[in-house]
Amino acid sequence: MKHRVVSGMRPTGKLHIGHYHGVLENWIKIQDQFDCFFFVADWHSLTTEYADTAAIRDNIREMVLDWIAFGLNPEKSIIFRQSLVPHHAELNLILSMITPVSWLERNPTYKELQDNIEHRDLSTFGFLGYPVLMAADIILYKGTRVPVGHDQLPHLEITREITRRFNHLYGNVFPEPEAFLTQTPKLLGLDGRKMSKSYGNSIYLSDTAEETSKKVLSMMTDPARVRRADPGEPDVCVAFNLHRIYVPQEKLDEIIPACRNATIGCVECKRILAECMNDHLAPFRAKRVELSSKPEFVEELLQDGSSRASLISDAVMAEARSALKI
Amino acid sequence: MKHRVVSGMRPTGKLHIGHYHGVLENWIKIQDQFDCFFFVADWHSLTTEYADTAAIRDNIREMVLDWIAFGLNPEKSIIFRQSLVPHHAELNLILSMITPVSWLERNPTYKELQDNIEHRDLSTFGFLGYPVLMAADIILYKGTRVPVGHDQLPHLEITREITRRFNHLYGNVFPEPEAFLTQTPKLLGLDGRKMSKSYGNSIYLSDTAEETSKKVLSMMTDPARVRRADPGEPDVCVAFNLHRIYVPQEKLDEIIPACRNATIGCVECKRILAECMNDHLAPFRAKRVELSSKPEFVEELLQDGSSRASLISDAVMAEARSALKI
Ligand code: SF4
Ligand code: SF4
Repeated sequence: MKHRVVSGMRPTGKLHIGHYHGVLENWIKIQDQFDCFFFVADWHSLTTEYADTAAIRDNIREMVLDWIAFGLNPEKSIIFRQSLVPHHAELNLILSMITPVSWLERNPTYKELQDNIEHRDLSTFGFLGYPVLMAADIILYKGTRVPVGHDQLPHLEITREITRRFNHLYGNVFPEPEAFLTQTPKLLGLDGRKMSKSYGNSIYLSDTAEETSKKVLSMMTDPARVRRADPGEPDVCVAFNLHRIYVPQEKLDEIIPACRNATIGCVECKRILAECMNDHLAPFRAKRVELSSKPEFVEELLQDGSSRASLISDAVMAEARSALKI
Repeated sequence: MKHRVVSGMRPTGKLHIGHYHGVLENWIKIQDQFDCFFFVADWHSLTTEYADTAAIRDNIREMVLDWIAFGLNPEKSIIFRQSLVPHHAELNLILSMITPVSWLERNPTYKELQDNIEHRDLSTFGFLGYPVLMAADIILYKGTRVPVGHDQLPHLEITREITRRFNHLYGNVFPEPEAFLTQTPKLLGLDGRKMSKSYGNSIYLSDTAEETSKKVLSMMTDPARVRRADPGEPDVCVAFNLHRIYVPQEKLDEIIPACRNATIGCVECKRILAECMNDHLAPFRAKRVELSSKPEFVEELLQDGSSRASLISDAVMAEARSALKI
């Protein structure tokens, strides 16, 4: 039997290439291998964005256009929107009844996130209960594998504890989901910090070739290479973290010594990068333009996927309610 | 416009006369005056009973038989089961996102209940969030009046705060519900303690006339009246707290001096009480026997009421989601 993978992404809007290489690319890869459920985690976005929801609808649309244009396939996977499947809220409520508050308070990311995100009050009940909703999201489909990075392992551990507790109290309904550890290389943004929407240092999947070239040419390189004649070091060059992804190995084998000997200039070197990136991204971007011309495309896709997800979750909830004798 | 009243009762099983005079009688009274929603709070019962749910289904049946037999009228009021209307869980999830944990932690009954109920771990996330679910229950129907005793005013205050916060963040969707203060006389049980299922000192609405008589005759009286010849004092007599409810005033006017003069014995006096109680309760009990002979009665009634409730809550949720832009 195929493993069932459940994974969600908060609707933060159009995705940058860091999202792509960090998460989406992996989703696309595992579609053939597993029985996959990918969802727009719009309830989750309320845990931090409750005070400003104006952009959620647009953000969903932009994100899902990226998903599909870059290869997520609604014929292979069930692609849906969390809030369109009411069972997420129902199972969340049930699981909240059996989850000790202490499990949530000792969640290492809880305090950390609260401290790091400024200008927002994150001391809400829903924010504290984030791991309960995450548990509901996964076991609602009897997920057995969850793609996570190392930093998210503590969350998944809470999911596993809640699952065990439910099964212990009411009988074996839910498989205990296991981590499917993914490599999530942290891409550097234009300024050398982690690529992040909030830093304004991102290259978006939906950027045009021109925008991409412009951004790449503005990218930081080896800070020690001040003049064209100075030798550079690709290992400390910010732009070069993208070369490694987009530029073919044989070309890299030329660039590395040329940089160290100062026989190639940074502008020329970044032009090569921009060209390779645009070549690589062009077909996906063309598909994205095509998809975004259909105003109802995302809405219909999510409606359809959510109906399919509901069919599965409906049966699982019937089992859960009956175990619970409610 | 009629006020809309929303009120729920946890399914603890068959009701005793303390429940009747404390809550149910009031519900029955206000049916004609207000637009009423009365519900079986089965989600709420999980906040304390999550570890032992075996009895919930029976408890619901017994409680609802009492409701209807004693006068709650499904043609006047919407009588439903909380867990059959999925919007309660959905609105609970939304409200959890905007409710500060501190509002819940300072809820005076939170710590108190935790300390008082032994043998159960009540440090769950769901137990902490009890007032959030209560807020969802009420505003889901745009309730404007909530019958509460003095001790529940702090809970309703949290409901009002959450309502204001939602309206402030997303626009005026929900009216702010107001307390409708009810007198809840604490009936004494057979042993002189508060009447409570857990003390085994209760007279149930569903008891037979024989059971009632037997219980009444075993009831404590004036502890100072040891011998038949000792004068008694109705004001300190445990049985007499029921006389005041069930025995007509003219009869009381005879009993009070007779007790004080020791011209009536306690056995005779309690026989009068038992007779009056049974006379009073007989027609309701007959109806209860009749209703309980129909195995599907409660199930169908709650299904029907829940469908009617869902029609209302569906429209309110559509409004809430649209305000939330989700
Ligand atoms: S030549 Fe290329 S690799 Fe070397 S520092 Fe410049 S951009 Fe970076
Ligand atoms: S005579 Fe009646 S009122 Fe007086 S002590 Fe006995 S039971 Fe109570």
